[in-house]
Amino acid sequence: MELSRLFSPRGIAVVGASNNPKKFGGLTLENIVKSRYDGYVAPVNPTKDEIMGLPAFNQVSDIPMPIDVVVLAVPKRHVESQILDCAKAKVQFLLIMTGGFGETGEIGKSEQAEMVKLARDNGMRVVGPNLLGLGSTPSKLLMNASLAMREVEMREGTISMVSQSGSTMGILYNRGAREGVRFRHVIALGNQADIEIADFVEFYAEDPGTTVVLASIEGLKNSQRFFAAARRCQQLGKPLIVVKTGRTQHGARVATTHTGSLATAYEGFAARCEEVGIILVEDDLTMARLGAVYAKYGDPGSARGVAFLSPSGGAIAQATDRLSEKGMELADFGPETVMKLETLYVEGMTSNPLDFANLHDNSFLDVGDGGASIVAEDPNVAVIVGVLGTTHNLDEMVTDMASSVGTRIPLSFAVLPGSNGDRARHAAAEFGLLVVDSIDDCLNVFRLWMQSRPIIFPSPERPNGIENLAGVPELAAGVYGEFETKRLLAGHGIAVTREAKAATVEQAVKYAEEIGYPVVLKGFGAGLNHKSESGAVKLNLTTVDVLRGAWDEIRKSTRDALEGCVVAQMVKGEAELLVGAYRCPDFGPMIMFGAGGVLAEFLGDVATLPAPAHPDSIRAKLMNLKISGVLGGLRGRQAADVDAAVDAIFRLGWFVADAGNRLQELDINPLIVRKDGDGAIVVDARMRLEDLRQSEQSQVKSR
Amino acid sequence: MELSRLFSPRGIAVVGASNNPKKFGGLTLENIVKSRYDGYVAPVNPTKDEIMGLPAFNQVSDIPMPIDVVVLAVPKRHVESQILDCAKAKVQFLLIMTGGFGETGEIGKSEQAEMVKLARDNGMRVVGPNLLGLGSTPSKLLMNASLAMREVEMREGTISMVSQSGSTMGILYNRGAREGVRFRHVIALGNQADIEIADFVEFYAEDPGTTVVLASIEGLKNSQRFFAAARRCQQLGKPLIVVKTGRTQHGARVATTHTGSLATAYEGFAARCEEVGIILVEDDLTMARLGAVYAKYGDPGSARGVAFLSPSGGAIAQATDRLSEKGMELADFGPETVMKLETLYVEGMTSNPLDFANLHDNSFLDVGDGGASIVAEDPNVAVIVGVLGTTHNLDEMVTDMASSVGTRIPLSFAVLPGSNGDRARHAAAEFGLLVVDSIDDCLNVFRLWMQSRPIIFPSPERPNGIENLAGVPELAAGVYGEFETKRLLAGHGIAVTREAKAATVEQAVKYAEEIGYPVVLKGFGAGLNHKSESGAVKLNLTTVDVLRGAWDEIRKSTRDALEGCVVAQMVKGEAELLVGAYRCPDFGPMIMFGAGGVLAEFLGDVATLPAPAHPDSIRAKLMNLKISGVLGGLRGRQAADVDAAVDAIFRLGWFVADAGNRLQELDINPLIVRKDGDGAIVVDARMRLEDLRQSEQSQVKSR
Repeated sequence: MELSRLFSPRGIAVVGASNNPKKFGGLTLENIVKSRYDGYVAPVNPTKDEIMGLPAFNQVSDIPMPIDVVVLAVPKRHVESQILDCAKAKVQFLLIMTGGFGETGEIGKSEQAEMVKLARDNGMRVVGPNLLGLGSTPSKLLMNASLAMREVEMREGTISMVSQSGSTMGILYNRGAREGVRFRHVIALGNQADIEIADFVEFYAEDPGTTVVLASIEGLKNSQRFFAAARRCQQLGKPLIVVKTGRTQHGARVATTHTGSLATAYEGFAARCEEVGIILVEDDLTMARLGAVYAKYGDPGSARGVAFLSPSGGAIAQATDRLSEKGMELADFGPETVMKLETLYVEGMTSNPLDFANLHDNSFLDVGDGGASIVAEDPNVAVIVGVLGTTHNLDEMVTDMASSVGTRIPLSFAVLPGSNGDRARHAAAEFGLLVVDSIDDCLNVFRLWMQSRPIIFPSPERPNGIENLAGVPELAAGVYGEFETKRLLAGHGIAVTREAKAATVEQAVKYAEEIGYPVVLKGFGAGLNHKSESGAVKLNLTTVDVLRGAWDEIRKSTRDALEGCVVAQMVKGEAELLVGAYRCPDFGPMIMFGAGGVLAEFLGDVATLPAPAHPDSIRAKLMNLKISGVLGGLRGRQAADVDAAVDAIFRLGWFVADAGNRLQELDINPLIVRKDGDGAIVVDARMRLEDLRQSEQSQVKSR
Repeated sequence: MELSRLFSPRGIAVVGASNNPKKFGGLTLENIVKSRYDGYVAPVNPTKDEIMGLPAFNQVSDIPMPIDVVVLAVPKRHVESQILDCAKAKVQFLLIMTGGFGETGEIGKSEQAEMVKLARDNGMRVVGPNLLGLGSTPSKLLMNASLAMREVEMREGTISMVSQSGSTMGILYNRGAREGVRFRHVIALGNQADIEIADFVEFYAEDPGTTVVLASIEGLKNSQRFFAAARRCQQLGKPLIVVKTGRTQHGARVATTHTGSLATAYEGFAARCEEVGIILVEDDLTMARLGAVYAKYGDPGSARGVAFLSPSGGAIAQATDRLSEKGMELADFGPETVMKLETLYVEGMTSNPLDFANLHDNSFLDVGDGGASIVAEDPNVAVIVGVLGTTHNLDEMVTDMASSVGTRIPLSFAVLPGSNGDRARHAAAEFGLLVVDSIDDCLNVFRLWMQSRPIIFPSPERPNGIENLAGVPELAAGVYGEFETKRLLAGHGIAVTREAKAATVEQAVKYAEEIGYPVVLKGFGAGLNHKSESGAVKLNLTTVDVLRGAWDEIRKSTRDALEGCVVAQMVKGEAELLVGAYRCPDFGPMIMFGAGGVLAEFLGDVATLPAPAHPDSIRAKLMNLKISGVLGGLRGRQAADVDAAVDAIFRLGWFVADAGNRLQELDINPLIVRKDGDGAIVVDARMRLEDLRQSEQSQVKSR
C-alpha cells in the first residue's frame, strides 16, 4: 500500500487539540509543532480560536488547505461524526488515538469494525485506533503522543519500523538515540483495525529510503499478507528483522504424539519466518541494534573473527571468555597486521585482544586509534569491538577509532562503567556506531549478524509418481496406530518395515518366513495402547521356535485384550530419528524432526519446517541438530544414510500437505536410519485425524 | 589475615606524590584528599615543601605521625630504598603501584620476589605491585589512582570485593553507583606478590561489617588457601560470589578418553567452588548485581514467583516471554491479592503482570505504587520487577514503589528507554535498589539468586571394606583397556561384567557356560585398538553354535592381529552412562558423569565433582542432567537403578582419590544401569597411567 503521504503529509489536522500537553491531543500537537516538520498543521477544537500559536478550526472540513492526515484524539462518542466530517475534506488517513475499541472486548470489536467500515466507505483508511502515532526523520515529523521520542535528537537513518505497542516504539526511539541506532519511519499501530503490519512491511520494502525493516509483533491480522510482504523484502535484499511477543503462551492443544507435545504456535511462526528470510530475534532491543548493524554495513563478508581493543585488561579477559562461550571466533591477526601493529605495540603484545596498556609509550594519555585502522584491514576480522573500561579519555579513544575505521567493517563499543562512560557513549552515537553497555549485548548482536540471513531454498518439487491425496482417505476421526499409518506413508514412497497382521501363531510363522528372520512381534487389540508397557512387543526373534515362544508370552501378558500380532521385519541401524508432522492452526502444515527413540522426550533436539519443504532445507536443518553427530558416523559406527532420511522427511512433508486439514498430528518414531546406502525405514508411526467440520471450525476460531 | 588497618589506616604516606593528577602519585594523593577520609595524610617528595596544600616530607621516616600504610608510586629503581626507609617508620602495609615486576616476565618475577622478601624481612606486608589501590566507604577513603571511582558518590554498603584487575574495580564501583550496588571495602591487587586474594576473602569473612564477599579472579596464587577462606565464608553464612576469567583457555592436555576430552581446568575449578558453597557467575557485572541482592535481602525464601509491574504493555509481554524462556516462574497472585488489587485495577485486569494502563483512573499521571505493596504481601511473590517503558513520571513510579515495598522482598527495575529513564535510574539507585537497563540482565540476577547457594554435603565416608590403594598397583605407564581397568574397579566394589580371556574357541565355549548365555565376544591383540571398528566385537551370542560362528568371523576380520577373545556377560539395561575420572592439575582428582554411549560425544550432558564425592551430591548432580529423564523411567521403560549408579560413581570417586597422581584419566563407557533393583554394571572401561616422576613434574609446572 502506498503510505508515503502518511509519513510526509501536505497537511495535518489534529482533532481534539488543546493547549494542555498532558492530554493526547495537546501533546500530539505540541510534538508536531516542536519537531521541525515544514508542512501545514491545523488544530481542530470548536472551543478555541488559537492553540499553541496556530489558528484553530471548528472542524476539519473548515480547513482551507489540503489535509492528508487527521489525528483523532477525541472521546469515543465523537469519533463517528468526525469521520463523516473528514470525508468532506478528502482526507486520506485517519490516525485514531482514541481507545476503548477492539482492545476492550467483543462490543469494542464490533464498534471498531463499524468505525472502519464508515471510514473506508468514505474513501479513507484508518491507522489505529488506540495508537500512539508515528515519527519520520526525513520529514522531521513527530506525529505522536510520546514524550520520550521528542526528548532525543534522532539523526536521519534508513531503518523503518512498525510496532503494535506504542511503548515499544518510544523505548526504541529514545534508547536508539543513545545507542547509535538511526531510524527513518517509525509507527505504532495499536489495534490494526484497518491498515495492518503487513501494509507497513510492504510499504517499507518498496520505499527507496528504507534499507532495513523492523517489526515488533503481538499478533498478525493476516499472516499470509505478512509473509508475502516479507518475501518482497527478501526479493529486494532488505533485511526484515522481527520480534514476536506472546511466544511462550501454549494453547490448550490436544497432543497424542511426541510431535504434538513438542509443537507450539511460535515454532510454526518461526518456521514460516525462516522460509521467507525473516531474521527472528528474541527482544526489541536486539532487533533495533541488529538493524543498526545491517543499515550501516549490509550483510557480513566471509570473515567471522572478532577483534577486541581495550584499555582494560580485566574486561577483555572476560570478553574473550564470553566470545568463546557463545561459539564465536576470536580473529587471528595475519602477519602483516602484526608487523604493522608492532609500530604501536610492544613486541609480543600485538595479538588479539589488543590491550592499550601495551602501547609503546605505555601511556593512556594518547592512545590514538589503538591500531584500529590496522586491524580493520585484516581479512580475518569481521568486527571490531572496543571494550571500554575506566580511563579519563574514553571519548577520545572512541573518536579516534571511529574516524580511522570509517565504515569498512563494523566498529562497536561495549562501554562498561557508569557515568565514567557517558561521554564515550555520546561520542560513539554521534558517529552512528552501535554502543551498548555490556559485552554480552554487543556480542549477541554480532553473533546474529554473522549467522547471516536465512538461506531461501526454492519451492520443493513433488516427488516423482506421487499423486496429491487431496485429503486423507476415508478414515474416521481418531487416533491410528502404526499399521494404518505406515500403509498411508508407504503410499507416498516412504520405506516402512515389511509386515503383516497375523491372527494366529501359524499365520505369524508363515509371514515370518516371507519377511525373513529376525522379526518382531507386536500384539494388537482394542485395549492395547501402550504396547511396550504391556509386554506386547518382542524384538529380534531369530527362529521359528523363538517366535512361537514369544507369541505365547505376549498372549499371557496381554490376556483377553490380544486380537493378533503384527509380524514385522526387525530393523537395526546407525541412528533413530523422530519425524513428525502437524498442522499449526495459524501457519499451516509443518514437519518436525530430530533425535528419536528415548531421546525425543527429553532432548528437545528438533527442527521444524513448513510442509512441503525442499530437501536441501531439510538436510541443512538436520545437520544442524545435535543428532547430526550420530548421523555422521562416530567412533565405531558407520555413517548413516542421510540421503534416505532426508528423502523420507521430504516425502512426509508432501504427505502432510496433501492430507489436508483432517490430519492433525503424525509421529514416526523411530525412523531408523541404516548405514549409508541401506536406506531409512519407518518402524513405528501413529497419527490423529479430526472430523473435517470440527477441524474447519478450529481453523476459523484461530484467526 | 588482619587487614583492618589497610582500610582504615591511622596515617597514610604517598611516596611519589606530586601536584600533577596525571601521574599515579598525584592522582592518588588527590583522591585521598578529595575523599572525606579523616586520618592523617602525608605526601612524600624530596623536591617539594607542600603538595596540594599538605606539608610534604623528604622521606617516610621523617613523618612525625604513625603511618600504617604507604603508597609507593615511584619508578622501579627507587622501590628498594623506599622500602628500607619505610621499615624505619614501622609501616604495616606497602601499597606498591609501581609496574614492571612480575607482569613483565621471568626477570620481573624474580625482582618481585626479592622486593617482597625485603619488605617481609623488615616486618611489612606488600599489596601489589602493579596495583590500582583500594576504596573503603566506612573510612570515606579512596586510596587509588582511579578517576572513575571518585566521580561517583558511593553510599556505604556491606559488599566487600577483591579483584586483581584495577579496571574491574573501577568499572564496578563506578557503574555500581548507577545501578544501586553499595560497597564497603574494595581492592584491586595487581600482581598478588605477597598478600593474595585468599587473604582478603578470609578478612572479609571475619569482618563484621561485610555481609557479602565478591572476588574477580584471573589466577589463584594458592588455591587451597582460597578454598579454605571460602569455607569460612560459608560457615559464617556470607555469600561468596566469584568470577574467574581465562576459563575458556584449554590447556594442551593429552586426552585418550571421553572424559579427558571433556575435562577442562575451569570445570575442576567450578566443581571445587561448588564443594565449598561459592556462587560462581560468568561476568563481573552479574557478580556485583547479585551481591547487591544478597546484601539487601539475604537468601531467598521459599517463593519463586516473579511479579511484573509496568506502564508498558509491550515491554511486559516481552518480559513474560523472557521469564518463561529462562525457566523462571510468573507468580500467580492469590485471591486475597486479587481482591485488594481490584481497589486499584479494573476488574479482570488484576493478574500478573500488572499493566498500569488498567488502573481505575486510566491515567498515567498518578500511578502511586501501582499496587506494589499489595503484591509484596503475596506469599507466591519472591521478587517484584518494575519494567519501565516511556512515560514522563517514571521517577515518581520508582519512588512510590520503593517507599511502599521497603525491604520486604526484592524490588528491582529494568529501565528500558535511554535518556527518558535516567531520572528513574537515579531514583532507584538512591533507594539502593538494583536498577539495570534490560529485562534480561534483571532476570538473570534473580534467577541466580533464586537458584540459591550450593548445598554443601558432608565429606563422604569410605565405602565399607575398601582399603586405600595408596596409588595404583605396579603397572607401567600407558593406556589400559577394559580387562585390566575393570579388574581394578572391581577391587573397589564396582560391579563389572563377568568375563574371562579365552585364547582358543574351546576355552571360550567353556567360559561362556560358566558366565551364562547370552554372551559377548571381544577380540584382543596388540594391534586392535578400536575394537568395534575392526569387527572384533560380537554381541548377544545366544548359543554355543552362534558363539563358534562369531569366533570365526572375528578371526577372519582381524586376521593376524587376534590374540584371543574376552568372553563376557551380555548386559542390557534401561540407560547407559559415561562415568569418568581425571586428575585436574590445579584442583585435584575429579569424577565426571553423564549420558553415555554415542550420546557422550555430542551432548555434553555431564556433571563434574571433586573426588571423593558424597553420594547425595552425586545423586543431586545426576538427577539434574538431561539423562535423568531416561533414568526415571520413560513411557514403556522401567525406572533404572539410580541407587546402584550413584554407588558405582561414589566408589569410582574413592578409587581415583586413592589411586593418586599416576592415574590421569579413566573412562567407564558405558555403565549400564539396569532396572531398579538389578544394579549398574561396568561394560567397558579404559584408563591412562603416567609415570609418577613425569606426573609430578607436570604438577609442578602447572602451579
